[in-house]
Amino acid sequence: MLKFTLSHTEKKARRGCLETAHGIVQTPAFMPVGTVGSVKAMLPESVRETGAEIILGNTYHLMLRPTAERVARFGGLHRFMNWPGPILTDSGGFQVMSLSGLRKITEEGVRFQSHLDGSTHMLSPERSMDIQYLLDADITMAFDECVSFPADKQTVEKSMRRSMRWAARSKAAFKDRQGYGLFGIVQGGMFRDLRAESAETLKKIGFDGYAIGGLAVGEGQETMFQVLDYTPDFLPADKPRYLMGVGRPSDIVGAVWRGVDMFDCVMPSRSGRTGQAFTSHGVLNLRNARHADDETPLDEACDCPACRWYTRGYLHHLFRCGEILSSMLLTWHNIRFYQNLMFQIRQALENGAFEPFYDQFMSRWQHDRKM
Amino acid sequence: MLKFTLSHTEKKARRGCLETAHGIVQTPAFMPVGTVGSVKAMLPESVRETGAEIILGNTYHLMLRPTAERVARFGGLHRFMNWPGPILTDSGGFQVMSLSGLRKITEEGVRFQSHLDGSTHMLSPERSMDIQYLLDADITMAFDECVSFPADKQTVEKSMRRSMRWAARSKAAFKDRQGYGLFGIVQGGMFRDLRAESAETLKKIGFDGYAIGGLAVGEGQETMFQVLDYTPDFLPADKPRYLMGVGRPSDIVGAVWRGVDMFDCVMPSRSGRTGQAFTSHGVLNLRNARHADDETPLDEACDCPACRWYTRGYLHHLFRCGEILSSMLLTWHNIRFYQNLMFQIRQALENGAFEPFYDQFMSRWQHDRKM
Repeated sequence: MLKFTLSHTEKKARRGCLETAHGIVQTPAFMPVGTVGSVKAMLPESVRETGAEIILGNTYHLMLRPTAERVARFGGLHRFMNWPGPILTDSGGFQVMSLSGLRKITEEGVRFQSHLDGSTHMLSPERSMDIQYLLDADITMAFDECVSFPADKQTVEKSMRRSMRWAARSKAAFKDRQGYGLFGIVQGGMFRDLRAESAETLKKIGFDGYAIGGLAVGEGQETMFQVLDYTPDFLPADKPRYLMGVGRPSDIVGAVWRGVDMFDCVMPSRSGRTGQAFTSHGVLNLRNARHADDETPLDEACDCPACRWYTRGYLHHLFRCGEILSSMLLTWHNIRFYQNLMFQIRQALENGAFEPFYDQFMSRWQHDRKM
Repeated sequence: MLKFTLSHTEKKARRGCLETAHGIVQTPAFMPVGTVGSVKAMLPESVRETGAEIILGNTYHLMLRPTAERVARFGGLHRFMNWPGPILTDSGGFQVMSLSGLRKITEEGVRFQSHLDGSTHMLSPERSMDIQYLLDADITMAFDECVSFPADKQTVEKSMRRSMRWAARSKAAFKDRQGYGLFGIVQGGMFRDLRAESAETLKKIGFDGYAIGGLAVGEGQETMFQVLDYTPDFLPADKPRYLMGVGRPSDIVGAVWRGVDMFDCVMPSRSGRTGQAFTSHGVLNLRNARHADDETPLDEACDCPACRWYTRGYLHHLFRCGEILSSMLLTWHNIRFYQNLMFQIRQALENGAFEPFYDQFMSRWQHDRKM
């Protein structure tokens, strides 16, 4: 059971507050990804310093290594990784499709081979609930099936209906407790009627929050926004909405405009490790030789360590040398950039000024342009 | 010109204080290595937090990338890498031998090919002084030749005498300023008479400090200690002595006992990246599967983030997953371990109790034993 309160709304956009067993999350919120129990290249205290209030852990990775049972023996994921704040874990459904080797999907669940050592494992709604319980996730995700994009309507429909049966089993297996919650996941691809059917089914089962799955899979921003133009309307107004695996800054601003409250994405951390930085002027590639003699900060509008203490020239040098410090500084910067964006979104909503913020942001960032 | 003051001596061991343009260094001191302008996997503020007061930069690496001229345009190495404290740079002599491709040594200097792109470069006493000046090193090292070990006496003698001629040229080329100093390097391999001749030659030239080179090259601790039993006696008492590239904890304690004041080594940082941790119980290999379920801290006697906030089980997990955070935490811990060792050494010297400290430490750490 999770408490969710909306304090401001502006057209479809919402400013809220989600209370979990491990703390409060101001929404709209962006969750940095801590795949195997570490937000890559960051100390948890630094993650917190960026303004992040909640992080995401991956069931698929953690069940394989170090195993959910071991994390439980260490007192849960919060204690294991020294992140005392809220944690959302995914169900493993998406990654078992994208990462594992041979797999067999039946009504029971998914039997698959570990990408690490080829060992055989089973994920089902019941096992996924069990794992997320062992990890001590504040927010548990229902176990669902993910189809690849593009897929024909019949395939999407069949998969969505199985996911809905799995959602009911997830709900039945979930151990409800104060401060802990279970989110259902709306599927249905790019088909409005399937999205509507999926949302209706989930609402009847009843969840603490509703995720929108199956987007950011290569369909493009325009198509994604079309789906987001109607899908949030199918969902209850008093529960948080989470757009999974999204995205670029303009994706997030556009989705908030359409009524989404929560986001996660590896983009800020992964980009940091490959030398890409999100700045108030656009996306910057630090690998580029033209930064070698640049004595200006990465982003003069940013207060992170990378921007306060270093030049673009130094960051370029670190990246070229393959120094770990490059990943550390750019990850920190990018996560700070995302958190600062969420802060600005929340502030605009509080001031009833999100519409001009949205218009201005989308005209500048529509293509998340490269510098 | 550098000011060096000894406050306590106990037999041959010394407790001192070295004043440089960028701050004071309490000796005996250990310098973490920041090869290309970054102590790998550490923010400079974290390096400072470990207790380190001075770090080392590598002329060979920095001259190739980003080049000394570029570092100078950025205001010197301190500003470039955001380390406001003292920096010692090596001369490039050792690494041009160990890392570069084709090289030709003449009386003029060494012509070599970059290990990065095969481009041709020249290092000579004059060029090395120029580079270290551009880097703004508080302590500049004389340019010397390094012979591989083992080598016959004739080879060592010939090389040492060339290094002494290069030392005189280094002195002539060095731009002396208040707070900046030049160290000569005693060579002569494992031969007492050659070490004595080298030290005499250097003393006549006159340096701000004296390094002992050509050790920790595979000769073993016993042989190294034999050379250290006499070499410091050849050096002026009122100047700092620096044992280059050393070493393991017991190497350092044994060298302080024999009259050495300064050390540098990649061991704590490199070991950290390969999963090895120095602890008050010995050396621990975090790769080992027996740590997987260990809920105890790495070292209960240590106050670093790795030991305060995490278990051995978590650190093992991070290492097995190849997480950058593993390198970050273990490097931090190992450098903190080394700095804490230096603190204990200095405290024992202040209390006139270094001899029992030395005896106890050497009996426990003689083999820097693995756990």
